[in-house]
Amino acid sequence: MSGRQSTSTRAVLLVGTGLIGTSVALALAKRGHSIWLEDTNPTHLHQAQHIGAGKAYTGEPVEMTIVAVPPSHTAPLVAEHLARDADSTVTDTASIKATVLHEVERVLSSPSGVTSSPEPTGLSRYVGGHPLAGRERGGPLRARADLFAGRPWALTPAPHTSPNALEDAGWLVAECGATPVTMSAEEHDRGVAVTSHLPQLVASALAAQLDGQTDALLRLVGQGLRDMTRIADAESAMWAEIATGNAIHVAAAVDELTASLGKVADALRSGPPGADSVRHLIEAGRAGVRRLPDTHGGVARHYDLVPVFVQDQPGQLARLLAHAATAGVNVEDLRVEHAAGSPVGRIELFVASESVHRLRVALANRGWMLPDELSAG
Amino acid sequence: MSGRQSTSTRAVLLVGTGLIGTSVALALAKRGHSIWLEDTNPTHLHQAQHIGAGKAYTGEPVEMTIVAVPPSHTAPLVAEHLARDADSTVTDTASIKATVLHEVERVLSSPSGVTSSPEPTGLSRYVGGHPLAGRERGGPLRARADLFAGRPWALTPAPHTSPNALEDAGWLVAECGATPVTMSAEEHDRGVAVTSHLPQLVASALAAQLDGQTDALLRLVGQGLRDMTRIADAESAMWAEIATGNAIHVAAAVDELTASLGKVADALRSGPPGADSVRHLIEAGRAGVRRLPDTHGGVARHYDLVPVFVQDQPGQLARLLAHAATAGVNVEDLRVEHAAGSPVGRIELFVASESVHRLRVALANRGWMLPDELSAG
Repeated sequence: MSGRQSTSTRAVLLVGTGLIGTSVALALAKRGHSIWLEDTNPTHLHQAQHIGAGKAYTGEPVEMTIVAVPPSHTAPLVAEHLARDADSTVTDTASIKATVLHEVERVLSSPSGVTSSPEPTGLSRYVGGHPLAGRERGGPLRARADLFAGRPWALTPAPHTSPNALEDAGWLVAECGATPVTMSAEEHDRGVAVTSHLPQLVASALAAQLDGQTDALLRLVGQGLRDMTRIADAESAMWAEIATGNAIHVAAAVDELTASLGKVADALRSGPPGADSVRHLIEAGRAGVRRLPDTHGGVARHYDLVPVFVQDQPGQLARLLAHAATAGVNVEDLRVEHAAGSPVGRIELFVASESVHRLRVALANRGWMLPDELSAG
Repeated sequence: MSGRQSTSTRAVLLVGTGLIGTSVALALAKRGHSIWLEDTNPTHLHQAQHIGAGKAYTGEPVEMTIVAVPPSHTAPLVAEHLARDADSTVTDTASIKATVLHEVERVLSSPSGVTSSPEPTGLSRYVGGHPLAGRERGGPLRARADLFAGRPWALTPAPHTSPNALEDAGWLVAECGATPVTMSAEEHDRGVAVTSHLPQLVASALAAQLDGQTDALLRLVGQGLRDMTRIADAESAMWAEIATGNAIHVAAAVDELTASLGKVADALRSGPPGADSVRHLIEAGRAGVRRLPDTHGGVARHYDLVPVFVQDQPGQLARLLAHAATAGVNVEDLRVEHAAGSPVGRIELFVASESVHRLRVALANRGWMLPDELSAG
């Protein structure tokens, strides 16, 4: 596969035409590639074809095969396609990587395996992949060519993965508009337990505690807890599959979190040590959150916040941002906070420090209700 | 105090001219009331006067006294002012309520107490209060008259609190533009442990776990964990004081959370029960998060999401919202997601279901990059 021009048209097979597979197909079709589709679900296959994701596969030669099926079905299909076509790079999109890799290795090295390919195992042509596209269910009709635009896409080459195969996988990620992040399958699984699976369980556990509270108390819930429970409105069957698929790493991540929280609870109960324990935890958290890559290319940049109060009426946000733009200020991010029962919303505009003064003056001149906060100098 | 007109001007004493006390003073001064200020810190007192929060108190008669000092200093000052002026309603702004109440009761009922007032204890004139204004530090120069606008403000009357005193406290909350939420001191403290103190500790513990991760892994962190660790960039001394001030309730809330998470971890390690356990937790979390009052007056309304991709350039957000407004669509909320290293941002607009189609058509006509998601019917 080396020497292929990145501008050339490729023939690609999508195995699985759910949301992820069909979105990959749409992205590649949009770039002019020849897409073949395969699915044991005839309705999905039909729908994917119908929306222009590609044609039904009937054995045509392909340069790349992407297996986009649920994690538990991934390994056998990866092994089958590695064996079936000796020239195709095979990748997958399962959200768990090590178990898939080990299962592929097991199937291919087994004497009763499907290793009919000229290359003994084909393993060198396999690269694990995991597009972090925010959702994993929905079927082909919810697929979008831009589902991966600007998103990270983990690639998990094994030691036996060939440079060509990894290059092909990188090509796929680039064609989908995503950003490749390369690491081992083990690092990926241990990592997503902390960055994705644990947060989901914690959000759900925090939200579950709300169910026992009075209505009055729920009115005191502020933006902090709202932000922390946003993802709690989740699909239980999907998360049961994800968490059990990465059970050991998820359990370890839960243990680490509960141990650190339990230590604080014990210290709080024992009196004076409580303050030190809380202080230590808050400081460790601050160090951790500051390591998160900034949204602008990984350079740590912090924006200053300009709060504005607005009436909860149509078009107010638009007017506000138009006035910011007229002042030449780029609003990098914003948060909308409504308070229950109030007709007034609070908007927090995040802008570069050097723009704060200009923005405040411009908005005040336009009559916006700015907090009359004075500079502490 | 009964029979006072709500439109009349009142004389109010602020004890403590930090951020909260000075903000209350500014809010009341703006409404035309006579504000007296008292503080043991002469710099704060001077600064608060300087920005128009009121005049230095020299024993003038007042109708209401608001003690706005750190929780640990609150009770003695409440008791002192209840005793000093037999006609003044006294409230406070401490973020912990039961310990303050019990300490006030203890001081006033002690024979060596300061009960020189004609009314035996004065307790009927005390109402605990806690404005949830999002931040608790900053000094008078960061004070704002609108700090409490649209925010909840807990009032925690005791059984001995008189209706007049509670009415006065409600008047204060209304004059500050906040929304009163009435509950017992005990319910408040047990509640904020769950709604405020526990979330902070959890956010910090989640963020602390990031510190051990590789840079590559941190690039996989998505919006979920970002939202959950936003408050982790917190002030450790302040949180040490808050958590130790509510230690027993905070420890209990931590225990409940770690127990529910620990059960899931154990189930995951033991294999098949893992799936059921995760499913149960996710469902309990979904039930909890759906109980959160909506941002529009407590009526549960859910908005539909319209995602749009935008170039990360000045003025894009403003243009987008202007086009939404032109189409007559009220954007109820929005989220901005940048992906590390990508020049493309994803904006999620939340609008009423009936506006989704109109918005999508309007934005598409204006050339916005809308995900080519098809309706699943």
